[in-house]
Amino acid sequence: MSDDLSERRARMLLTAWSEPGDEYLVAAVDQQGASTVVDAVLSGTSRLRRAAAMRVRIGEGSRRVDALVAPIEDRADRCGARFVVPGDAEWPTQLDDLLTRAPLGLWVAGAAHLRRLAAFSLAMVGARASTPYGEGVARAMASDLSTEQWSVISGGAFGIDAAAHRGALDARGATVCILAGGVDIPYPRAHETLIARIREQGLLVSETPLGGAPMRQRFLTRNRVIAALARGTVVVEAALRSGSGTTAREAHALGRAVMAVPGPVTSPQSAGCHALIRDIGAHLVTGSRDVLRHIDPAAVTPDDDWPADAMGPREARVLDAVPVRRPVPLARIARTAGLVESDVLAALGVLEAEGLIERMEAGWRRGSRASAGPPRTMGG
Amino acid sequence: MSDDLSERRARMLLTAWSEPGDEYLVAAVDQQGASTVVDAVLSGTSRLRRAAAMRVRIGEGSRRVDALVAPIEDRADRCGARFVVPGDAEWPTQLDDLLTRAPLGLWVAGAAHLRRLAAFSLAMVGARASTPYGEGVARAMASDLSTEQWSVISGGAFGIDAAAHRGALDARGATVCILAGGVDIPYPRAHETLIARIREQGLLVSETPLGGAPMRQRFLTRNRVIAALARGTVVVEAALRSGSGTTAREAHALGRAVMAVPGPVTSPQSAGCHALIRDIGAHLVTGSRDVLRHIDPAAVTPDDDWPADAMGPREARVLDAVPVRRPVPLARIARTAGLVESDVLAALGVLEAEGLIERMEAGWRRGSRASAGPPRTMGG
Repeated sequence: MSDDLSERRARMLLTAWSEPGDEYLVAAVDQQGASTVVDAVLSGTSRLRRAAAMRVRIGEGSRRVDALVAPIEDRADRCGARFVVPGDAEWPTQLDDLLTRAPLGLWVAGAAHLRRLAAFSLAMVGARASTPYGEGVARAMASDLSTEQWSVISGGAFGIDAAAHRGALDARGATVCILAGGVDIPYPRAHETLIARIREQGLLVSETPLGGAPMRQRFLTRNRVIAALARGTVVVEAALRSGSGTTAREAHALGRAVMAVPGPVTSPQSAGCHALIRDIGAHLVTGSRDVLRHIDPAAVTPDDDWPADAMGPREARVLDAVPVRRPVPLARIARTAGLVESDVLAALGVLEAEGLIERMEAGWRRGSRASAGPPRTMGG
Repeated sequence: MSDDLSERRARMLLTAWSEPGDEYLVAAVDQQGASTVVDAVLSGTSRLRRAAAMRVRIGEGSRRVDALVAPIEDRADRCGARFVVPGDAEWPTQLDDLLTRAPLGLWVAGAAHLRRLAAFSLAMVGARASTPYGEGVARAMASDLSTEQWSVISGGAFGIDAAAHRGALDARGATVCILAGGVDIPYPRAHETLIARIREQGLLVSETPLGGAPMRQRFLTRNRVIAALARGTVVVEAALRSGSGTTAREAHALGRAVMAVPGPVTSPQSAGCHALIRDIGAHLVTGSRDVLRHIDPAAVTPDDDWPADAMGPREARVLDAVPVRRPVPLARIARTAGLVESDVLAALGVLEAEGLIERMEAGWRRGSRASAGPPRTMGG
C-alpha cells in the first residue's frame, strides 16, 4: 500500500471529499480499495450514498485524478506536509484499533517520525477554561514525561492543551499536536507561535485536508485520534461535560489507560476528573511517576516488525537522530537526540544488536531493518 | 453481662489498670471472665504477665473491689458519665469486629444512645494541620450528612476533626467525639467549648478511664475504635504518613468503606488522600451524596435484635426522641428529633409496626421491644 501511489492519492482525494470518521466510506474503502471508490465517484457510477455530495464538492472542473490531486500535492509541497496512510512505515498502527472509524490517512508536518513518537506517547488533554493550578500541573507533568523520553500528544487548544505542549517543549521533548483543521491552518490563531514551535520540535497531525477549517464536528472526531494514538490519556482539568471527558471515554473504550488529575472538590474544572475516577475507574495520578505506572511497557509495540524487547523510548529517540545514508559521529547524534553521550552509546548498542543501525568508520547510520515493516493489506 | 454488676465493675477496674487494645488482657477476660481476672490480680494469684504492673497501679490501699470501684463510680456520677460494656443495650456490637483488640468497655457521656447513633454513623477524620479548603469541605460534608440523619464520628482534634464536628453541630445533628483521654478531660483544651457542645448534642466516648490523660499511644489505639464504630471512614485531608491514614487503613482491614476527598496534587495535605485512593482503592468522594453511595444500607444493623428492614436513620432518630415511660405528643417528638412532623409520623408508623413504640392517648412512648436485645455471653 505504501508504494501504491494511486491508492495513496485516492485516499488523499477521499479525505478531501468527506468528513473524518465516516464509517460508511471507510467500509467502502476497506471492501473495494480507495482507487476503485474514487474512480466510481468520478465516473458517476458509484453506488455510495455519499457520491452525490462528493461530486458537489469536486465541482465542475476536471474529473481526472491527476488534475484533482495536483493542487493538493502542490499545497503539501509548499507547506512541507506529507500524507501518511496505512501501510506506510510512518503509519501508527494503533490507529487500526479504531476499526471502521480509523482515519483514511493523516496529514503530517514536522521532522519527527509519527509512528516512533506515537509508540511512546501519552495524551494530555483538558479544559480550555483551565485554572492556574491545572495549567501548572499539566506543564510540569508534561515536562517530566518528556524528560523520561515520552512524547506528549494534545490538541493545541487554550488552557490545558497549550500547557501540556509547552511543558514538553520546556524539556526539549517531542510533542504532537492533533489539529481539527488542516496542519497548515494554525488554530487557535493566538497559538500560531506555539504551533510553529511544536512543528519544529515535534509534529502537527490532522485528518482534515490542508487548508481545511477547524469546524465544530472536526474537534469531536479529532478526539478519537488523540485517544487511539496515545498509550494512555491523562485528563488534567475538565468540566463535567467536556471534550476531554469524551477523549478519556474514547481511550477507555479502546482499552487504553485513562488517568485523571484530582483537584479541589470545590473547583468545577476538576469535577470532570473526579467523575472519571469515580465512574469509569480512571487512575488518579498526581505526577509523571504515577502516569508511567499505568503504562504497560510490554504493550508498546503494536506489530511484530518492531523489536519489542529492546526498544525503549530512548532507543526510539536515538534511532530518529541517526540518518539513513551518511554516517554521523556520536556527538552529533547526542546533540540531535538531546541526550547525553553515555545514554546515546547504550541505545546505539541496542539498535545495532537489533540490526536497526550500522557502525561505520565515520559513525552510525540506519541499518537494513530500520526502514519499515512489510506492506500491510487492508481488510477485505 | 449487662446485668452482671460484678463483671461490669471488673471491666471498669481492668480498664483503669491497663492500656487500651491490650490483646493479652482481652484474651484472659474472654477466657476467664473479668471478675475472675480481677480477683486473681487482687489476691496476688494471677498468672497474667501484666499482674505485677497492675498491682503497682493499684497501689498500697484497699484490695477490695468495692473500695476500688467506689471512687471511680463517684467520679462518674459527678461528671455524668456511664460505663458501657458488651451485652449492654447501648453497646455498639460492630466493635466486636475488632476481635482481640475490642475495648473492654467504653466510658460514655451525653444524652444520646451510643448504639443507635453509631449504627448510622460515618467517621470523618483528617489532618490537624489542615487547610481552609479541607476545613470547608469537611464542615459542609458533615453538615450534609447530618441533614441526611447520619451521625458524624471524629476525634475532636484541631483541623479536620473539629470542622467535621462543627459541621454536624451546624445542622443540629448528632456527633460523636472519641477521645484519647477520659471523657471528663476535654482535649485539646482549646476545644473545651466545642467538646461541651458535642456532649450536649451527641456523645463523648473513650476507652481511657475518667481523668486519664490523652497520651500518645492512646491516640493510636483510639483510632481503631473510630474505624470500627463507623460504617465508613472519610479522610478529608491527610499528609502521607498520618494518623488519619492509619484510621483509614484500619477501616479497610475491618471491611468498612474507606473514602477520601481529593485536593490539589500540589498540596501536601491532600497527598495522603490521593495515596489512599491510589494504593488501597479508597473511594474518591466529592460530597455527601458520593459518601452515601458507598454505604450498603443492608449492612446497617449489626445484630438480629435490630429491626433491620424498617429502621432507617430517621426512625432511629425518632425512636431516640420517644421517652420510655410517659407518652409525649407528636409536636414534642418532632422538636426533640429536629424533624418535620410528617417525617416523624412516617417514622412512628414504622416504629409502631416493629413494636418499638406504643401509641397512647397522650402520645407515644417506648414499647416492649425498645429496650435491648438479649444479654450476650462472652466467648470462651
